[in-house]
Amino acid sequence: MDQATKRELLDKDRQRVWHPFTQMKDYARQDHLLIEKAEGIFLYDADGNRYYDTVSSWWVNVHGHGHPRIKQAIIRQLEETDHIMFSGFTHRPGIELADKLLAIAPPGLGKTFYSDNGSTAVEVALKMSFQYWRHVGRPSKTKFAYLANSYHGDTLGAVSVGGVDLFHATFRPLLFDGYRLPSPLVGEWSGGRPTPEAAETSVAKALEAVKQLFETSAGEIAGLIVEPMIQAAGGMLMHPAAYIAGLRELCSRYDVHLIADEVAVGFGRTGTMFACEHAHVTPDLLCLSKGLTAGMMPLAATLCTDAIYEAFYDDYETQKTFFHGHSFTGNPLACAVALESLRIFEEEGVLDNVRAASDALRGHLPGLETFRHVANMRHLGLVAAFDLYADAASQTPYPPSERRGYQVYLEALKEGLILRPLGDTIYYWLPHCTTVAQLEDIVSRTSSVLERLGYR
Amino acid sequence: MDQATKRELLDKDRQRVWHPFTQMKDYARQDHLLIEKAEGIFLYDADGNRYYDTVSSWWVNVHGHGHPRIKQAIIRQLEETDHIMFSGFTHRPGIELADKLLAIAPPGLGKTFYSDNGSTAVEVALKMSFQYWRHVGRPSKTKFAYLANSYHGDTLGAVSVGGVDLFHATFRPLLFDGYRLPSPLVGEWSGGRPTPEAAETSVAKALEAVKQLFETSAGEIAGLIVEPMIQAAGGMLMHPAAYIAGLRELCSRYDVHLIADEVAVGFGRTGTMFACEHAHVTPDLLCLSKGLTAGMMPLAATLCTDAIYEAFYDDYETQKTFFHGHSFTGNPLACAVALESLRIFEEEGVLDNVRAASDALRGHLPGLETFRHVANMRHLGLVAAFDLYADAASQTPYPPSERRGYQVYLEALKEGLILRPLGDTIYYWLPHCTTVAQLEDIVSRTSSVLERLGYR
Repeated sequence: MDQATKRELLDKDRQRVWHPFTQMKDYARQDHLLIEKAEGIFLYDADGNRYYDTVSSWWVNVHGHGHPRIKQAIIRQLEETDHIMFSGFTHRPGIELADKLLAIAPPGLGKTFYSDNGSTAVEVALKMSFQYWRHVGRPSKTKFAYLANSYHGDTLGAVSVGGVDLFHATFRPLLFDGYRLPSPLVGEWSGGRPTPEAAETSVAKALEAVKQLFETSAGEIAGLIVEPMIQAAGGMLMHPAAYIAGLRELCSRYDVHLIADEVAVGFGRTGTMFACEHAHVTPDLLCLSKGLTAGMMPLAATLCTDAIYEAFYDDYETQKTFFHGHSFTGNPLACAVALESLRIFEEEGVLDNVRAASDALRGHLPGLETFRHVANMRHLGLVAAFDLYADAASQTPYPPSERRGYQVYLEALKEGLILRPLGDTIYYWLPHCTTVAQLEDIVSRTSSVLERLGYR
Repeated sequence: MDQATKRELLDKDRQRVWHPFTQMKDYARQDHLLIEKAEGIFLYDADGNRYYDTVSSWWVNVHGHGHPRIKQAIIRQLEETDHIMFSGFTHRPGIELADKLLAIAPPGLGKTFYSDNGSTAVEVALKMSFQYWRHVGRPSKTKFAYLANSYHGDTLGAVSVGGVDLFHATFRPLLFDGYRLPSPLVGEWSGGRPTPEAAETSVAKALEAVKQLFETSAGEIAGLIVEPMIQAAGGMLMHPAAYIAGLRELCSRYDVHLIADEVAVGFGRTGTMFACEHAHVTPDLLCLSKGLTAGMMPLAATLCTDAIYEAFYDDYETQKTFFHGHSFTGNPLACAVALESLRIFEEEGVLDNVRAASDALRGHLPGLETFRHVANMRHLGLVAAFDLYADAASQTPYPPSERRGYQVYLEALKEGLILRPLGDTIYYWLPHCTTVAQLEDIVSRTSSVLERLGYR
C-alpha cells in the first residue's frame, strides 16, 4: 500500500471509527495497526511488517488465516444460496451443522438454536432456562448464579451475569440481580503455582459455596453459568476439571441448569474439542461461537437438552413459543464455513496438532518463569498466561497507572508479536495450526521483550 | 435434490434444529421449506418450486438474492484478509465503510461503532447513552423511554425497551424499568384509513404524552428509542414524519438522546436511504443492521454524534472507556459486502427503482382493499400492510385461535408467495430489485389467496 493511501486511511480511522473495548485517546499519538494481509498465524501491516497473531484475533481464529478450504467453502456456498430466513424455511448447511455439532458435543444434548455471537448465545441460554421453569410450573426460579471474574458478553443480559467490575459495574442500574459465587482458586495462588493439595482444597471450598447457595436458594435459581476450565477475559484464570464435575453434580442434585459458556474455550482450544470434556460433563445448555466458524465470520449456537426443548413444544395457543430470533439466524455462509472447519478438524488431525503444540508450549514456559517479575504461570492446551508483579514473591502488583501489560503489548509489536494483555496478565491464545518451531520463536521473542523492559 | 436426500435432511431438521420465533409443534405435521436456490426476488425449494420472497428474507435482502457484485465483493475480500480483530488493529473495509456510512447518514453524526446484529446495535446505543450521562455529570439520567408496540431486538437490554407483550412479557423479571409511551395513531384507525386531520390530531396527542413525561421526568431519562416511520414487528404500524420531527424537537429541548432504530427501515426500504430523512431529522444515535450487508451476512453499526464520542475520550485512568465489543466487530468480509452494496445503490439507481416500485405498489393496493375483510391498508416505500378482520367496518378481530394470518401464510405458499404474517396483519417488505411486472404478479397472487380463503 502506498504511504499516501495508508496515511489517508489511518486519518479516516481516527476521524470516523470508534473501536471496541478501546480508550480512543490511547490512539491520539499512535495509529491503529493497519492490517492488509493475513496468512496462517501471521498478520501483515501496510508497511509489510509481520506479526504473530498469538491471540488468534481475539480468540476466534482456528486453522490459521486464509485457510484455502475455508475460503473455498464460502465460494461454494455463494453458488447455492446467500442468506435466507430460518423461520418457516431451512437449508442444508443449517441442518447439517446442527446435526454435526450435536454429534461431537458432550452426549445428551438434543437441539441446536442459532444466533450471531457469544453474547447472544448466552442471552438465548439465559432466556431458555428462565422460560423453561415457567413452563414446568416452577416460576419462582428466575435468578442466575455466576462466578466472580466471569465474562459472558456485553449485551445487558450477559453483562448481568458478568463478574468483572471493570467492564460491568458502570451499568449496574440496567442489570438484573443474581448470585455471585467465588471464583475457584483465585487468591489461592499466593507464593506461586498451587500444589495439587492446595488446588483440591480450593475446589472444595468453591463448591461448598455453591452448595450453601443452592441449599438456601435453589428454589429461585434457574441456572448457573460458567466458563469451563478457563475464566478467560477475567484474567485467564484456570481451575481444575474437578470443579466443573462438582458443579454438574450440584446442579443436578438441586435442579439448577448448568450453562456452559464455551464461546471462548470451545473447539479445541483447551486440548479437547469442548472444555467440558476435561470433566466428562454434559451441561444443560452449551454456548458456542468464536472458533465455530474457524474465526471467519459471526455465528453462534446454543445447544440444549431435549428436556428443555420439550417444555416449549406445545400447541401454539398455550403460548410456550420461544420468541427469540435474529435476522441472520443460521446464516448459510457461516454454517457452510463451520461445517468445513469441522471437516478439517477430522481430516487434518487438528486436535493431534493441538496436543503436540501444547506439549511444546509447556516445555518452553519454565524459561519465562525465570523472570523475576513473572508469576502464576498457567497453561492448558493452546492457552498460557502469567502475571507481572512489582514483587512476585509477595505478589505485590504494579500501580495500575503504570499499565505494565499495555507497555508489554506496545513493545511486543516491535518484536513482531501480538501480546494483547488483560491488565498486567500476559497470555497466549494460539491458533491450532501453530507449529513447534513457531512456538519456540514466539516464546523467544516474548523473552526478548521482557528482557528489554527490565523484568529479568 | 433427490427425494431421499430431501427426506433425510428434513428429518434431521425436525430432530436437531430449534428454529427462531417458531412454535416447533406447528411443524409436527408439515416440513419447514427446504430452500436450495435463491435468485433475485425468488427462493426455490428442493422440489424446484419457486416462491416470491416478498419479505426480503426477514427484511434483510436488498438487491435480490445472489447479486453477482455482492458475491464478487466477498471473493475479492477473501484474497486480502479474513477476519482480524478490530481493537488495536484496523483494516481498509472497516475504515471505508465507517466513513461512507457517516457520509450518507443524516448530517451531524460523527463516529461508527460496529457490532453484529440489530439487537447489539441497540444495546450499544443504550449503553453509550447511559454511560454518556455519567461522564457529563448527570448520573441520574439512567432510564429509557420507548413506545408501545415497539420492537428493538431480543437480547435482554433490547427487550427492556420493547413494547410488544407477546414477545416480551414473559421476561419481565429480567428487564430494567423504563417509560412506555403511547404509539402514535394506534387505535385511531377505527373506520379505516385516517384522514390527514385525524393523523395530525393523533401525532399531536402522542407528542403531548412525550412532552408530559419529559416535563416531569427528563432528569432521569437518558434516551428515547423509536423505529422511525414504521413500527415493524409490532404490526407494520406507520406514523407521519411529523411525529419524528416532534420527537427530535422535544428530545433536544429536554436533553434526552433520540435513538433511531433503523435496523429494519434503513437502507432505502421506506423510499429514502434512511427513514429519518422523511422528517429531516438527525438522531443522536442511529442503529443499523439487516440491509447494511444487502442481507448477505450479519453486521451492525451504531452511529453517534461527536458530542457523545468526546464524553468518552479521556486519559485511560479516568475510566471512561466504552467497554463493549464483540469478537467479530468490523468483520472485513461483512464490511466489504456492505461497501459494495452502497456502491450498487449509487451506480445502479437503486433508490429510483424503489420509488418506481413504490408508486406501482400504491396503484395496486386499492384492488386488495376491495376485500370485505381487509382494512387499514398502509404503505410506505416498499412496505405495505393490511389487517384481516371478522368485521372490517367495526374492526372486530377474528378469534386469535383461528390464526387467520397463519392460514394465509400457508395458502400463499401454494401460490408461490411468501406472505409471512404478524398475527392477522399481512404485509409486503419487498426487495429493492422488485420490478413493476413482479409487483403486479405478487398482488394478483395475493388476491387469489384471499379469494380462495373467502375474504371477498
